Amino acid sequence: MDKLNQYIDRNRERFIEELFSLLRIPSISSDSNHKTDMLLCAERWKELLLEAGVDKCEVMSTEGNPVVYAEKIIDNNLPTVLVYGHYDVMPTDPDELWKTSPFEPVITNDIIWGRGADDDKGQSFMHAKAFEFMMRENCLPCNVKFMLEGEEEIGSESLYGFCEKNKQMLAADVILVSDTSMLASNIPSITTGLRGLGYVEVKVTGANRDLHSGLYGGAVANPINVLCQMIAKLTDDKNHITIPDFYKEVLIISEEERKLMSQAPFSLENYKNELGINDIHGEEGYSTIERVGIRPSLDVCGIWGGYQGEGAKTVIPSEAFAKISFRLVPHQDFNIITERFINYFKSLAPSGVKVEVTPLHGGYAYVCPIDFPAYIAAEKAYTSIYGKRPVPTRSGGSIPIIAGFEKILGIKSVLMGFGLSTDAIHSPNENYPLEQFFNGIRTIPLFYKEFAEIMKK
Amino acid sequence: MDKLNQYIDRNRERFIEELFSLLRIPSISSDSNHKTDMLLCAERWKELLLEAGVDKCEVMSTEGNPVVYAEKIIDNNLPTVLVYGHYDVMPTDPDELWKTSPFEPVITNDIIWGRGADDDKGQSFMHAKAFEFMMRENCLPCNVKFMLEGEEEIGSESLYGFCEKNKQMLAADVILVSDTSMLASNIPSITTGLRGLGYVEVKVTGANRDLHSGLYGGAVANPINVLCQMIAKLTDDKNHITIPDFYKEVLIISEEERKLMSQAPFSLENYKNELGINDIHGEEGYSTIERVGIRPSLDVCGIWGGYQGEGAKTVIPSEAFAKISFRLVPHQDFNIITERFINYFKSLAPSGVKVEVTPLHGGYAYVCPIDFPAYIAAEKAYTSIYGKRPVPTRSGGSIPIIAGFEKILGIKSVLMGFGLSTDAIHSPNENYPLEQFFNGIRTIPLFYKEFAEIMKK
Repeated sequence: MDKLNQYIDRNRERFIEELFSLLRIPSISSDSNHKTDMLLCAERWKELLLEAGVDKCEVMSTEGNPVVYAEKIIDNNLPTVLVYGHYDVMPTDPDELWKTSPFEPVITNDIIWGRGADDDKGQSFMHAKAFEFMMRENCLPCNVKFMLEGEEEIGSESLYGFCEKNKQMLAADVILVSDTSMLASNIPSITTGLRGLGYVEVKVTGANRDLHSGLYGGAVANPINVLCQMIAKLTDDKNHITIPDFYKEVLIISEEERKLMSQAPFSLENYKNELGINDIHGEEGYSTIERVGIRPSLDVCGIWGGYQGEGAKTVIPSEAFAKISFRLVPHQDFNIITERFINYFKSLAPSGVKVEVTPLHGGYAYVCPIDFPAYIAAEKAYTSIYGKRPVPTRSGGSIPIIAGFEKILGIKSVLMGFGLSTDAIHSPNENYPLEQFFNGIRTIPLFYKEFAEIMKK
Repeated sequence: MDKLNQYIDRNRERFIEELFSLLRIPSISSDSNHKTDMLLCAERWKELLLEAGVDKCEVMSTEGNPVVYAEKIIDNNLPTVLVYGHYDVMPTDPDELWKTSPFEPVITNDIIWGRGADDDKGQSFMHAKAFEFMMRENCLPCNVKFMLEGEEEIGSESLYGFCEKNKQMLAADVILVSDTSMLASNIPSITTGLRGLGYVEVKVTGANRDLHSGLYGGAVANPINVLCQMIAKLTDDKNHITIPDFYKEVLIISEEERKLMSQAPFSLENYKNELGINDIHGEEGYSTIERVGIRPSLDVCGIWGGYQGEGAKTVIPSEAFAKISFRLVPHQDFNIITERFINYFKSLAPSGVKVEVTPLHGGYAYVCPIDFPAYIAAEKAYTSIYGKRPVPTRSGGSIPIIAGFEKILGIKSVLMGFGLSTDAIHSPNENYPLEQFFNGIRTIPLFYKEFAEIMKK
């Protein structure tokens, strides 16, 4: 441990500058204007991994953005860890709310500010530096493979095919991922469940052109009013989702497990204060932790239509749009849920409008049992660094490809996340505390050590 | 009449070129970037009115955009007509739907295409050219005053004060306005009723920042979902507006008058085909003509919030917005209705969000009785030109200042509109058929003649 701390101290400025070189590349996967940045970011990762000590590294093309693959095989009889991360980031809007420039990372108060600082450049880079340490100190106890993709934020579409094609190359005993959060900087936790995801765009069309709201107001369907009415009907007054059979396959959690979950540290007052809200809002009959952990949800992520400029324009627009996401739990299938949504949503439309629904992406939920050997290794690693056993938690977030890995490669993942809820991932002012970054680098080599020992037995 | 037709034939190209010089100025009053264009447009009107033969013309400053005032006083014993119009136009968005450039007017198939071609540059310019004819042919039978404002599309805010200040200068026997439509190019009609207007912007705020829809989805209020639910609650399943006391002051039209209204030519099939809709949509118990003529309505004119870009971004936005308009009928007071809306709308919000409502503008409804002398003069003028008596109709649109003129100046208006429902005012591809433009110029001098005669008696 002392060696590791010394190594970090000696190389601290270099680690940060290397991470910043990744953060400065605006690798926004959802915006096709950033295609070149995706390549630049992949190439930069390749340089950094080669410098860290991998035997070989390739930027491998896919149908979409390339995958960075690297490996260090020291002994075929030793266990193999496949590190997964992503180099793409979310868009930055609303830009006016950023206090610093999203792609000009800075450190203030020992916190890194910038898009990707946590999700997932900061977190995945911890693995590169932990690996570098083990290589330089000659204590790497496992084979290591790295796979960094550029489409996580838009559904990892190309990575499914990439995994199908490269099963042999990707063979491993566990997939190690840092793309989640822990409960607090002094409450270590490991995410054992991820929600699945469905995401659709809907379009409601009324008349064939924008209409004067005086001459036509009251006589024809206004697509915005109609869209609002349709969205409102997706939930009832107890915030249950009303799509028929939406909950049919939902895994019912035992009263015992719910009791255990309720013991996780959680302050409703702090939660509300931190978000600046007067009250929480969710499905009747469930706690906040349950609402995001074991229950599905439905959110409109975006809506637009009609006049959005300054002042007053009286118009009935021809079209209105919304982007709607579902977070799903085991054993909801996003394809089936999306189909049920489409049927139900269309049935809500009055005859004066046309409705189109475009599925944009989806993914399955994931569960990691707490007796899985790699989970036990991770638990021990956190305990050494934080002085207490990590709490197993179920995250409300989704990393659809994690369920995909299990389906395609037959490999389970352990989600060793070091993010915090205050990191504002996907939001303006994304950040990542240096303490989390360096504690991650400290924890990861211990995982390798524990995992190699467990696998020996 | 022959003289008039000859005059039009001789000057046809000049009339069009003069109108185009107005249409080329992007005088969008709702956009503060166009302040200079408002002045340019007012100055151009001044030049054109002086050339047409007024004694004096001034661009008079107000708290907002200037008013163009001109007059030709021939005899204080003769009746005086005050012509009112507006030189401001609506914004052009969505720009991608325009087939021609909105401020580069062109003529194809004998139709003028461009923003303001009808509303209201094209229509108000007919009065300048009809006046010019009467001056050149020495047959002007009344005094004439012109008042052209630059804020009609944003509520005529400064014109109320302007009228208060200039009551003496504006004294007249009737206000003549061409800013409405007729039923069809072969079915003349005169608008005898205008709806009033209320217009507000609403903002719903949830958490203090955009949130990850996975980590928070289902546990906190999503301002878009909430806004949709609140908007949906503004109408019931029979499309009645649910704001308490919204209909309290609504003028109930007699069964007899409703019967007369139902005799106006109207083809539901044509209406639906022309709009490209499968079905109409409106308040139960009323016909389409009644829904826009004698009943109030509520339309969301714009909505926005969250991610509106390409692809899928999973986010719970911090804020969501909408612009909501009401069309009001006699005797609804927009101030009272706006207040009732604000109270009701805020009461619909769950405790997890904050709601702000900003009133943007408003105006009263207007009615012109069909036995009003100037109405009779207008009726005779249309009958001469079109060979049939014009139908009195109630428009769904609003020109709030018309009710203001009656309140402040004590002068009633006659709405001699020559627009058509296909003119796409406030929409992309606004247009004005040359036939309507020249028939307007033909009809107006006859009005003056009939009006002078009626007033003599």
